[in-house]
Amino acid sequence: MLGVFCVRACSGLVGHRTATCVRTLRSLSGITVAQIDEEVAKLLELKARLGGDDGKHQFVLKTAKGTRDYNPKQMAIREKVFNTIVSCFKRHGAETIDTPVFELKETLTGKYGEDSKLIYDLKDQGGELLSLRYDLTVPFARYLAMNKISNIKRYHIAKVYRRDNPAMTRGRYREFYQCDFDIAGQYDGMIPDAECLKIVHEILSELDLGDFRIKVNDRRILDGMFAVCGVPDDKFRTICSTVDKLDKMPWEDVKKEMVNEKGLSEEAADQIGEYVSMQGGMDLAERLLQDPKMSQSKLATAGLSDIKLLFSYLQLFQVTDKVVFDLSLARGLDYYTGIIYEAVLTQAGVAPVANEAQNGANSEESVSVGSVAGGGRYDGLVGMFDPKGRKVPCVGVSIGIERIFSIMEQKAEASAEKVRTTEVQVMVASAQKNLLEERLRLVTELWNADIKAEVMYKKNPKLLSQLQHCEESGIPLVAILGEQELKDGVVKLRVVATREEIDISRADLISEIRRRTSEA
Amino acid sequence: MLGVFCVRACSGLVGHRTATCVRTLRSLSGITVAQIDEEVAKLLELKARLGGDDGKHQFVLKTAKGTRDYNPKQMAIREKVFNTIVSCFKRHGAETIDTPVFELKETLTGKYGEDSKLIYDLKDQGGELLSLRYDLTVPFARYLAMNKISNIKRYHIAKVYRRDNPAMTRGRYREFYQCDFDIAGQYDGMIPDAECLKIVHEILSELDLGDFRIKVNDRRILDGMFAVCGVPDDKFRTICSTVDKLDKMPWEDVKKEMVNEKGLSEEAADQIGEYVSMQGGMDLAERLLQDPKMSQSKLATAGLSDIKLLFSYLQLFQVTDKVVFDLSLARGLDYYTGIIYEAVLTQAGVAPVANEAQNGANSEESVSVGSVAGGGRYDGLVGMFDPKGRKVPCVGVSIGIERIFSIMEQKAEASAEKVRTTEVQVMVASAQKNLLEERLRLVTELWNADIKAEVMYKKNPKLLSQLQHCEESGIPLVAILGEQELKDGVVKLRVVATREEIDISRADLISEIRRRTSEA
Repeated sequence: MLGVFCVRACSGLVGHRTATCVRTLRSLSGITVAQIDEEVAKLLELKARLGGDDGKHQFVLKTAKGTRDYNPKQMAIREKVFNTIVSCFKRHGAETIDTPVFELKETLTGKYGEDSKLIYDLKDQGGELLSLRYDLTVPFARYLAMNKISNIKRYHIAKVYRRDNPAMTRGRYREFYQCDFDIAGQYDGMIPDAECLKIVHEILSELDLGDFRIKVNDRRILDGMFAVCGVPDDKFRTICSTVDKLDKMPWEDVKKEMVNEKGLSEEAADQIGEYVSMQGGMDLAERLLQDPKMSQSKLATAGLSDIKLLFSYLQLFQVTDKVVFDLSLARGLDYYTGIIYEAVLTQAGVAPVANEAQNGANSEESVSVGSVAGGGRYDGLVGMFDPKGRKVPCVGVSIGIERIFSIMEQKAEASAEKVRTTEVQVMVASAQKNLLEERLRLVTELWNADIKAEVMYKKNPKLLSQLQHCEESGIPLVAILGEQELKDGVVKLRVVATREEIDISRADLISEIRRRTSEA
Repeated sequence: MLGVFCVRACSGLVGHRTATCVRTLRSLSGITVAQIDEEVAKLLELKARLGGDDGKHQFVLKTAKGTRDYNPKQMAIREKVFNTIVSCFKRHGAETIDTPVFELKETLTGKYGEDSKLIYDLKDQGGELLSLRYDLTVPFARYLAMNKISNIKRYHIAKVYRRDNPAMTRGRYREFYQCDFDIAGQYDGMIPDAECLKIVHEILSELDLGDFRIKVNDRRILDGMFAVCGVPDDKFRTICSTVDKLDKMPWEDVKKEMVNEKGLSEEAADQIGEYVSMQGGMDLAERLLQDPKMSQSKLATAGLSDIKLLFSYLQLFQVTDKVVFDLSLARGLDYYTGIIYEAVLTQAGVAPVANEAQNGANSEESVSVGSVAGGGRYDGLVGMFDPKGRKVPCVGVSIGIERIFSIMEQKAEASAEKVRTTEVQVMVASAQKNLLEERLRLVTELWNADIKAEVMYKKNPKLLSQLQHCEESGIPLVAILGEQELKDGVVKLRVVATREEIDISRADLISEIRRRTSEA
């Protein structure tokens, strides 16, 4: 550990400073690791005080691994996607909340099973031990317990953090947005659950990402299946997370992991293998309720009956065309207790995956098309936070927005239509010199009338460069001032697209601009 | 360090477990600190695996110190404030960007002077050393340098992090939003600077927070003043940060700090004291340009000339009523190079301060009314990141949104008007039993027509409880289904406010709802 630290410290000092550093250290005989470490720390502190290597050229100019900036074009796309999603959440009557980006470390502890190692911890700088949120669900449960809320329908759009191996070309990051919609409360079975699926259906349809499929299963069906296939109780969770890999690995590899790594009998694995290949609708649930083995498990029959009920509501919601009951769906997270679901895009050639195939990823992965939404029921999570263990049943869905951004971005790149990054309606320009004051006076009039307007920050800009700026950024109108216009009390209004120019009296200018921009 | 860790670890185990822990440790003789530490680590790991103290009752149910959740009501207010601010930024033609919540630690190093100790670091979990962003300005500069952008007008609304002593009743948090607007580019003097002040003026006027004042100064005037008052060069920055405390401490205390702590001569301090008591407008800048001492400093005269030019543009922008040239304004951050400004609310009895006075804070602080916006010119920051040291002049402003939220929240509390937290237009209800399917069918019709609608997640809810829910959450319309309505092919539409009820044919329902809700 100390050795690693030293290497990193030295490699941070570039050029002749590296040489000096190494030479000095070498010339010291009998130095201990602790002393080296202390020296390095002193050097680093000095470096920090000097403002980064005593010069301006030593910075590594990058964002942290697995993260990215959003440029204005990406932000314009992001806003469009968010608007679609938020509109849908609001259409379904959701409120919104926000929680801090970090939680007490113990709030997150024991909620994510094997994935807990991916949580970002903050440095202990004195005070509480904190971690960055890993999802929005656990903070939501903490919020409900803390505020003793037993009924709420809320959405929450915010960034979450996972120290995962990023695959950024596929839209997988270490910092990424989640868009969560959850319904908390004690209600009659499967009604809120069905609404979550309706929401996924609406959002994916409206975003126009091509065809999709929503896979549905139930943790109780999985657990019942494990029981009747002879999986020992204490292996349910670990076998479940192996089943979860079926969308990324072929059955043979999944089976190998079960038998060789997790110590399951080959016979049990084969029985699981039969079930997890099953897909269908309400009919499959009915058939499995008659299955001699499955029907022996109370858990499984409860889950299967709920799947039946769910499908009856999905019919009323008109979304059964996209929903499949799929026994191979397991979902990674520990906290699910009932129904689980996941939406995948099924259209061939979805760009992020094609990208990865080009990069030489293995063929299994390039076949699977990314999950873009997922969720399920978690009736026990709030109780884990409540001092009295009081339970609040919850069901929710999370939209995997980063992958959707990636697809939308590539669509925008491919499309001829230009993405506007501002909403400016008018550029206030002048054709002659020494009219800065007049331009500022006019743009003030426009701003005060709530018109989106710009002026170039130059005393004497060229008319051509003012017009060019309009072309580039899609500003539809130019209000041109000149000596003559000022004398006549008019402004020359130019329509950028048609190059048409008309004189408008100063008094009518605002209403004329409003008329022309509301048309658009 | 190890000792501290042990104490904390033990105090984390509550009740009988603490006793056990302490007893076990005491009974071990000859144990080393390292062994204790190892034991504690094992215990903690065990605790973590058990999911938090082996039970459900050990969680500290709180958010991290200095942070808070936003409930739906607060979110509704927050969205309103954001909309006002974003509208203003867009009116002025700004694009938006986003950057990750953490940066490489070295990106932030050496940018914040004495405040650097308040930066949150992430734990070294292998990989890069990271820190949470302290503001949006440094990430913006990093973004410009990294992408070689020399011209942009952008806004960025996001949370920033400071390990400060929170004063949450005054709207001061460790996690808080900043709303930044910045103009980067080589332009003619003071035009973008004046636009930033225009923006502050527009936003504070529109938010209707009572009267305000925008103080303006220039770092070059401060530095020139320090020079002519006999402050040694190497003390400029530290004396500057003492001057910055003038809004929180009386002059006598500031002087004491300069003389006793920072080692300035009493004579120099007194000369500074004279200048920093000056306030005015363009006239003051003109007078100081004639001042026998000030006029000797090239820095000061450059700054004073720019203040004059700035005020001439502010006149054109019609905002001079609120702007004051104030020589005591210093601003804490290191990176400013030219003009600086800060907006304060001046209305007596602004709630957050009154609150603090009630809590027994000292009287100096309760007199100062909080800063709600601040910014300035920072022409050197981008160059610090550019491999070739290439400079990009920048000027910007940050709206201190948390304090504004606090005020708006208290206004909402005081007002009779109820804050709606959802936008639901219609509740689909039934008066009789066994109509769940019909309700789901109807609400699907409404959702599919983009009408915001809700249905209770119960098979047989009482009509009264459905109507009550509408009253409570401000839903204006109820679409009521009953056996008779279904037979007649109508829906009973109830206006919640007036209790008026009319039968509408199923075919006309959607247009009738649209008509009635667009009126509102």
